[in-house]
Amino acid sequence: MKRLKVIKIGGNIIDDKDALKVFLKDFSNLKGPKILVHGGGKLATKLATKLEIPVKMEDGRRITDRDTLEVITMVYAGSVNKNIVAGLQANNCNAIGFTGADGNTISSKKRSVSPIDFGYVGDIEQVNTGVLQTLLKNNITPVFCAITHDSQGQLLNTNADTIASALSVAFAKSYRVELSYCFEKKGVLKNVEDEDSLVKDINSSNYQRLIDTGVVSDGMLPKLKNSFHAIEHNVDKVFIGNHEMIFKGNSDYTTITK
Amino acid sequence: MKRLKVIKIGGNIIDDKDALKVFLKDFSNLKGPKILVHGGGKLATKLATKLEIPVKMEDGRRITDRDTLEVITMVYAGSVNKNIVAGLQANNCNAIGFTGADGNTISSKKRSVSPIDFGYVGDIEQVNTGVLQTLLKNNITPVFCAITHDSQGQLLNTNADTIASALSVAFAKSYRVELSYCFEKKGVLKNVEDEDSLVKDINSSNYQRLIDTGVVSDGMLPKLKNSFHAIEHNVDKVFIGNHEMIFKGNSDYTTITK
Repeated sequence: MKRLKVIKIGGNIIDDKDALKVFLKDFSNLKGPKILVHGGGKLATKLATKLEIPVKMEDGRRITDRDTLEVITMVYAGSVNKNIVAGLQANNCNAIGFTGADGNTISSKKRSVSPIDFGYVGDIEQVNTGVLQTLLKNNITPVFCAITHDSQGQLLNTNADTIASALSVAFAKSYRVELSYCFEKKGVLKNVEDEDSLVKDINSSNYQRLIDTGVVSDGMLPKLKNSFHAIEHNVDKVFIGNHEMIFKGNSDYTTITK
Repeated sequence: MKRLKVIKIGGNIIDDKDALKVFLKDFSNLKGPKILVHGGGKLATKLATKLEIPVKMEDGRRITDRDTLEVITMVYAGSVNKNIVAGLQANNCNAIGFTGADGNTISSKKRSVSPIDFGYVGDIEQVNTGVLQTLLKNNITPVFCAITHDSQGQLLNTNADTIASALSVAFAKSYRVELSYCFEKKGVLKNVEDEDSLVKDINSSNYQRLIDTGVVSDGMLPKLKNSFHAIEHNVDKVFIGNHEMIFKGNSDYTTITK
């Protein structure tokens, strides 16, 4: 089977113009079929603040009300996605931007309003790879932002880590998929302050111990859950770390295995 | 040759939720390959006002400075384009949203800063139909907003009427193209206040007379220039009018011929 790289980048790269430029150049140089998935960084929060849209929280998590969804759609699918696509074109990487609505690639279900009404948030129901495979075969790189749709005309805010994992799982039927979560750190660290405390390998046997001992917590837990979901559904490899190390393949990052 | 319909809609449809809903349903029911092109309506101006971005004018025309380009990118490529795509999906029309950067479909050149510096405005240089043809053959409908790129990473604001005309001309090599400019009026009117004063046929021989007698002026002139450009470059038919009439094909609209 042919290899497919699914790369997810986070806010640290998106919010830093110079870092984004370096990343887009490196990403463009990657050989073979690839898909990029991006979040929105702090730009959505900045725009919401400027527009005086109040941030609503429930149980420590942000609610996507109608105004917030509008801001997210403008920032993720408009500003961030299109600037990334144009940046990739400048590096001779022929990219097309996607939400899950485009090509009906990712449909989702609005999350139940009970116990907590998170608003316009979608949980992925189906990934359709048909159009994307046609594009990949034509050397085109899909670039996904963190928005899906319910097939009834409603856009829905959807976690970018989960989109990357769901795309990887859907493509695992026809490609040998490598999923990489790129961020500013070396990978999963035993001590977040110490880059030398990298956990190079995480598998189902040491995973629980890492949670119990508090090594894995907060921000990292959903990423690892998505990683294990991918690995358990035939994705070949999952990496977490700095893109330069992952792209070099020098193993100076966290690798997730079964 | 197979027929291709290129339909451009203006602000009057985009700014009116109910009108947009009707249009998207009617558009979805059109048989055969088709491309939708949309402007941004008043939403961009509204957002710019909310963000206190001053409107800069030169010679009666708006300047696209960096902040305005950002707003346009968010509104056109984000909010408007993605809501249209999701709306089409709800009508079982499999659509994918595009700027000219996506798939490198439309590249343009930033307009010269002299005599007037219009800012980040692009004049179309090249339309690449390859990817779009592949999508059309797979029953996918491209939806274009009024943004192109310079291939160097810069997005550029580009007139939606011109995009519709340029796409039509590029596809005229491989399709029998019908270009329709849809707006709220019946078509070109001798008296703008009187819907009964429709000019049903405009051709190169009565065109100049219509300009000289002041029938064609202001807003309509660029649309007609784009129409004649299309007709002179092998586009089969060009229509200006209300979408319901054009889609019915009852000839109650303006038809442009050589």
